[in-house]
Amino acid sequence: MDLDLSRLPRTVELLRDGEGRACCAFVDQRKLPNALAVERTRDWGELVCAVKSLAVRGAPALGVCGGAAVALWADRAAYGSEGSSAPQSPARGDGRPLEQLEAVCRTVAGARPTAVNLSWGVRRVGECVGRALRRGASLRDAADEAFAAVKAIEAEDEASCRAIGGFGAALLPAREGGCRILTHCNAGSLACSFYGTALGVVYSAAAQGKLCRVYADETRPVGQGARLTSWELSRAGIPVTLICDNMAASVMARGMVDAVVVGADRIAANGDTANKIGTLGVAVLASHFGIPFLVAAPTSTIDPSLACGSLIPIEQRDPSEVVERPPEGVDVHNPAFDVTPASLISAIVTERGAFAPGNVLEALRP
Amino acid sequence: MDLDLSRLPRTVELLRDGEGRACCAFVDQRKLPNALAVERTRDWGELVCAVKSLAVRGAPALGVCGGAAVALWADRAAYGSEGSSAPQSPARGDGRPLEQLEAVCRTVAGARPTAVNLSWGVRRVGECVGRALRRGASLRDAADEAFAAVKAIEAEDEASCRAIGGFGAALLPAREGGCRILTHCNAGSLACSFYGTALGVVYSAAAQGKLCRVYADETRPVGQGARLTSWELSRAGIPVTLICDNMAASVMARGMVDAVVVGADRIAANGDTANKIGTLGVAVLASHFGIPFLVAAPTSTIDPSLACGSLIPIEQRDPSEVVERPPEGVDVHNPAFDVTPASLISAIVTERGAFAPGNVLEALRP
Repeated sequence: MDLDLSRLPRTVELLRDGEGRACCAFVDQRKLPNALAVERTRDWGELVCAVKSLAVRGAPALGVCGGAAVALWADRAAYGSEGSSAPQSPARGDGRPLEQLEAVCRTVAGARPTAVNLSWGVRRVGECVGRALRRGASLRDAADEAFAAVKAIEAEDEASCRAIGGFGAALLPAREGGCRILTHCNAGSLACSFYGTALGVVYSAAAQGKLCRVYADETRPVGQGARLTSWELSRAGIPVTLICDNMAASVMARGMVDAVVVGADRIAANGDTANKIGTLGVAVLASHFGIPFLVAAPTSTIDPSLACGSLIPIEQRDPSEVVERPPEGVDVHNPAFDVTPASLISAIVTERGAFAPGNVLEALRP
Repeated sequence: MDLDLSRLPRTVELLRDGEGRACCAFVDQRKLPNALAVERTRDWGELVCAVKSLAVRGAPALGVCGGAAVALWADRAAYGSEGSSAPQSPARGDGRPLEQLEAVCRTVAGARPTAVNLSWGVRRVGECVGRALRRGASLRDAADEAFAAVKAIEAEDEASCRAIGGFGAALLPAREGGCRILTHCNAGSLACSFYGTALGVVYSAAAQGKLCRVYADETRPVGQGARLTSWELSRAGIPVTLICDNMAASVMARGMVDAVVVGADRIAANGDTANKIGTLGVAVLASHFGIPFLVAAPTSTIDPSLACGSLIPIEQRDPSEVVERPPEGVDVHNPAFDVTPASLISAIVTERGAFAPGNVLEALRP
């Protein structure tokens, strides 16, 4: 196995363009695996569209993206919208900067409801800008601080992923010939700033010579497994087998899977975990077949304000994702996430170590 | 709910055409739900192609189709291939009729390996022709007997389905407002001569006012649920909600499902049941959430020669069914079936009554 992470792109990254203005570069994941297209924008509204349309997705990447959107707003507030592709943005309206900031943060954080990282990133950068403005800093200084805050989130996210990878790989069952991991959706480098959470565990295991192969669930209806995970893993040199979601039981029953590793979009205080629709089913199967089920996620995914998983808002998406034109008279149900109870999770692996799901709040202790 | 089964087509039917020759009419299910196309052929080889390409599918329908292919061969052997669309068929070769018959039966029965009904139908009609020829009957008389044997299979299949429907509906949990049934793949009228096995239970429950709604798994990679079950049910007037396969756990966890009913492609002597890939996963989920899991199938699906499910041959199909062009370096796994152990099955419902899976051989007693 020739692991080569240098072949993976940075998923979302705040940069200075030729004029020194803040701009955000992001991989348009809707175009993968056919094309690796990196878009650049100075317009925070475009980032909101990118989040809503799933051009950027993955909980940790949404955290970076949320922060970057606020930083782009601050940059525009400081320097004007010249060169922007969406000059009629709300940030151009009247109102004092702090009020505008609040409105922008609300809009960005509301782009998708389930992943808590999005609002976490927005809040972190928004508070940074707010503090600067309240102490009388100029808009330009506030924009600089926002830029630095996003770069810090990016760096922390990658460091978190690498730590998660190490802690997670240590939990994998030892097996002659390496471990065979099943994963659902894409909690990979494409879902983060770089490296990945669930796939961070894969990359770390591969680097240690402990990995045999990954089974990637196709992950209907959007196909993050078929389009993203299989592309990312094969590009990084990891042997990967694509299966339909409904084949997971069959490969587990045949003894072809040693561990399941998935990411998370929001973890409640009791360890219940919201993740891509289908995760709950995989967790039930893993429990039935006696296979460890690991959730890999940074601590920014933990929402201590929610006592349990039933309080996590679940995004309902458009039926056209499931079928372009359903036969006449047919209803379509399309929740984007489900909630896996803590009882089905072997461990929640964060950048601060692995925790029993019931003790996940310990990961947040100072 | 306005149940109207007269809107459903006959799936596969042996007929006499204008010249009195045997011909087989079948719904090309690959064209559903966009078009209801009924094809007609006198050529047994075309039926083999229809089976291989999934134009005709569904275990009981394959039983009819297997028998019909033998009857078409007998008709051609008796009357010649004039008007046939495939005049170079092997049956035109040299060799005595009994040897040709044997070769034809082998070819037809081998078109798909998992559903035992296909070879059951072939054997039943093949033995009928063989007996006639051995006792010195003319090819024309043998062909007439084959025709009658297929018509008997068709009639028995529909009667079986209606009996299965009645026995199955009686097992559904009572619920104010009607029962909510989840099904996988299409074990409906389209999978049989007419009426359906798993969906026979649905139709019977609906006729008794005991049905609320059906959740239809989309059933990747071929989409029998998305394309066939949802079409068939809505056409018959049954409320149906289409879900992706990986959403079954979520709808069960929310208490939206009272029973799971599926069909079967082969049932081993111990009750282990091969059915469309994904059935095993649904069975594990139903067990986890305490939901009854019923297998509805005619006794022709039972294979007493196989002690347990691990002996059932599982067809591997082309990776292109899962993804047209997988990303470079990505393997694809595409088994068409999985095996649900008897321990996860609440009851096997046949035309002779419902049986505990471990006692399924009782269904075959004279």
